[in-house]
Amino acid sequence: MKLYEIAAFLGCNEIQDSIEITGMNTLKNAVEGEISFLSDSKYEKELSETKASAVILPASKAHLLPEGVVVLNSDEPYMYVALLSKHFAKPIQSSDLPPVIGEGTRVYPTAHIENGARIGANCTIMSGVYIGAEAVIGDNVILYPNVSVYRDCVIGNRVMIHAGTVIGSDGFGYAHTKMGEHIKLYQNGKVIIEDDVEIGANTTVDCAVFGSTIIKQGVKIDNLVQIGHNCVVGEHSIIVSQSGLAGSTTLGRNVVMGGQSATAGHLSIAPFTTLAARSGVTKSIVNKGIYSGFPLMEHKLWLRMQAKLAKMLES
Amino acid sequence: MKLYEIAAFLGCNEIQDSIEITGMNTLKNAVEGEISFLSDSKYEKELSETKASAVILPASKAHLLPEGVVVLNSDEPYMYVALLSKHFAKPIQSSDLPPVIGEGTRVYPTAHIENGARIGANCTIMSGVYIGAEAVIGDNVILYPNVSVYRDCVIGNRVMIHAGTVIGSDGFGYAHTKMGEHIKLYQNGKVIIEDDVEIGANTTVDCAVFGSTIIKQGVKIDNLVQIGHNCVVGEHSIIVSQSGLAGSTTLGRNVVMGGQSATAGHLSIAPFTTLAARSGVTKSIVNKGIYSGFPLMEHKLWLRMQAKLAKMLES
Amino acid sequence: MKLYEIAAFLGCNEIQDSIEITGMNTLKNAVEGEISFLSDSKYEKELSETKASAVILPASKAHLLPEGVVVLNSDEPYMYVALLSKHFAKPIQSSDLPPVIGEGTRVYPTAHIENGARIGANCTIMSGVYIGAEAVIGDNVILYPNVSVYRDCVIGNRVMIHAGTVIGSDGFGYAHTKMGEHIKLYQNGKVIIEDDVEIGANTTVDCAVFGSTIIKQGVKIDNLVQIGHNCVVGEHSIIVSQSGLAGSTTLGRNVVMGGQSATAGHLSIAPFTTLAARSGVTKSIVNKGIYSGFPLMEHKLWLRMQAKLAKMLES
Repeated sequence: MKLYEIAAFLGCNEIQDSIEITGMNTLKNAVEGEISFLSDSKYEKELSETKASAVILPASKAHLLPEGVVVLNSDEPYMYVALLSKHFAKPIQSSDLPPVIGEGTRVYPTAHIENGARIGANCTIMSGVYIGAEAVIGDNVILYPNVSVYRDCVIGNRVMIHAGTVIGSDGFGYAHTKMGEHIKLYQNGKVIIEDDVEIGANTTVDCAVFGSTIIKQGVKIDNLVQIGHNCVVGEHSIIVSQSGLAGSTTLGRNVVMGGQSATAGHLSIAPFTTLAARSGVTKSIVNKGIYSGFPLMEHKLWLRMQAKLAKMLES
Repeated sequence: MKLYEIAAFLGCNEIQDSIEITGMNTLKNAVEGEISFLSDSKYEKELSETKASAVILPASKAHLLPEGVVVLNSDEPYMYVALLSKHFAKPIQSSDLPPVIGEGTRVYPTAHIENGARIGANCTIMSGVYIGAEAVIGDNVILYPNVSVYRDCVIGNRVMIHAGTVIGSDGFGYAHTKMGEHIKLYQNGKVIIEDDVEIGANTTVDCAVFGSTIIKQGVKIDNLVQIGHNCVVGEHSIIVSQSGLAGSTTLGRNVVMGGQSATAGHLSIAPFTTLAARSGVTKSIVNKGIYSGFPLMEHKLWLRMQAKLAKMLES
Repeated sequence: MKLYEIAAFLGCNEIQDSIEITGMNTLKNAVEGEISFLSDSKYEKELSETKASAVILPASKAHLLPEGVVVLNSDEPYMYVALLSKHFAKPIQSSDLPPVIGEGTRVYPTAHIENGARIGANCTIMSGVYIGAEAVIGDNVILYPNVSVYRDCVIGNRVMIHAGTVIGSDGFGYAHTKMGEHIKLYQNGKVIIEDDVEIGANTTVDCAVFGSTIIKQGVKIDNLVQIGHNCVVGEHSIIVSQSGLAGSTTLGRNVVMGGQSATAGHLSIAPFTTLAARSGVTKSIVNKGIYSGFPLMEHKLWLRMQAKLAKMLES
């Protein structure tokens, strides 16, 4: 898509630049030829360093951009990003190259592997598994029946994913019109699952809107867990059944999340933190410790709270 | 099934009417040739208007029926409805007509489409997808891998359903014997999903016991959400991951349900209501607003409650 | 695997016994030729009765074993059990015998049934279903699309399992190294589902680490429920959507679990207990009754608590 076409779409008809825009990305990660945007003032500090060729943002912020970056003026940048995202959405199929299957790998006859995917050696790809275009699977991986891996996802070595789990489904992201409609922000990122990860059954790990949702080495995830887009789960963390991470939250290494616990989005959880079952995290956790409850508090405070409530009940 | 056969099943041997009963339905929606029932006194007011040919109900309520409706006297109407429902359950396969697939629609080889199903144009029906008998799918629909759509369900245009999601599974309905056993109420209804709906991965939407579970236009549903039988989700509502709606609850338009929130059954939630993450709704909401907690309260009260509890903890 | 090989693996090089060890099991259930272990002092009382040929345990407990049982001394028995468990893990495929399919059973073409599986009469095995090696399915069973049944699982008669549900996925069990890594305890057990059980869509039932996870006769389980390894769900119990049972918990008969409720692991819940929606059980329940809340209390106390909190809010 030519830049002047995008500009016209945004109503910036004065821009006639005909360079080809190859994709959208965040201010931080955009490269030459990509378009970016400022939809939240907390990213303003990234404007001056962006490598994007053009940026959608309110006119009042344009002076913060490096010289040479084309300004696409909009008072609703997020809405236009959503509208534009559809044009940059990758197709389900995009390669003519038949999938590459490593030595010793067994693929069940009802598995479906898209062109462009690459699977390592000694894997077991069971019945009903779907592996999307350009996905990359390491060695000694077991994908149990009916696992779905969306396009571009990367899975390391010795990973085990149980039946029905979905890797790389679209994150839940929309811009909202004044009429209360929701415009899909097409999710062009992927999921990276590092080595020695095990994921249970019927769990969902959404792909990133841009970039990657990352499940780091040695992480163990139970059944029916939800990992939102752009989350990073630190090395050797443990996430027990029916827990959920909203988008863009980062767990440090060796975090433990008890059953049915949850975190809000855009948080950072200190390494070695333990979240008790049912705990609900709404603020970042800086100091490791054991936390409980919703709202969250230190576990020992939660125990004291329960004692006080029990006393109140008797009074 | 002849009416006298049903009557004999209920122990009403005096009834010899041989009209053919074609189905079961609610008092409100039953048409001529169908049988209905009164299992909850709150529906008594619908007796006088019913078009059913016969109604199962306690003798004491028989006088409320229009003239000509056959009375099937039972003190346990719900139990008999459950026992009878099996006879009216639709078979998994029921048509000899091969499915109709619209122009430009791509069906992956391991998808399974039952006879009698109709799929519109320019759809993508990915690997492992199941589409049941008589299901109707609109145009430009994407069903990601391993989605299951049960029989009779109707899906509009531009709908996107992510991997592993189940549309039209049986609602959770049983009559309970005095011995503590559970008699299945066969779920003969369907799911209707209107245009421009997106549903995440591994979500479940149960079919109605009679009639339809309805997901209205523009609704966006995240991963691992449960929608019970006979729910109606209003236009442009948003339901975040791991939330659940028990049966027969109606959301007005533009309701927002935060992550892991839930509603009990048979409730009505006002349009433009926001339910915070983890909130649990046990009574209908008449006035729109922001609500939190379980039991539910206005969000500002919930914040005050947390402040009071924090103070109590310090004391 | 020869006993002296196992001993060498544990660093017990002095043991030269060459008997063949055929499997691992609990102290209680191990038979001759199997190896067992003591990883939790609460099982000490089972040492004196064990039939295991060898037991991994700390030296200080060795005197509690019957004469003739070989002592494999370890200060970290659970870690060694995990490390050894991989050697005893059953392969995904293990039989050359083609599956046996009963009369009147319909298997959809994209279902996959492993060798060694046996399916009874008049079943419907729909598209995308996976049935593992040595699994046994009774008569008149319906497995809806994309159900996965892992190896060795046993399903009774008249069982109905809705789309996307996973039976027999690995339980969530690991030994933890001092470096914070997690060593998988291979789950060699199975799931037994008795007659007349119905299970909803996208639910997960983990197999036992040793022995069986058991869903007893007449149980009804809703959508998106998690049943952990080694749980026993008593006859005619009802488990509503999005509830979870952590491992090794036993429900008595006719227990009712409301939506989004949960139990911790290793608990026992009295027959005829009702757990309200969202309740969270952390201690065994000896007396039947209605319970609510987290922490759990009698429902009438919970109501009183809410009244007191409402009063506090007004003050």
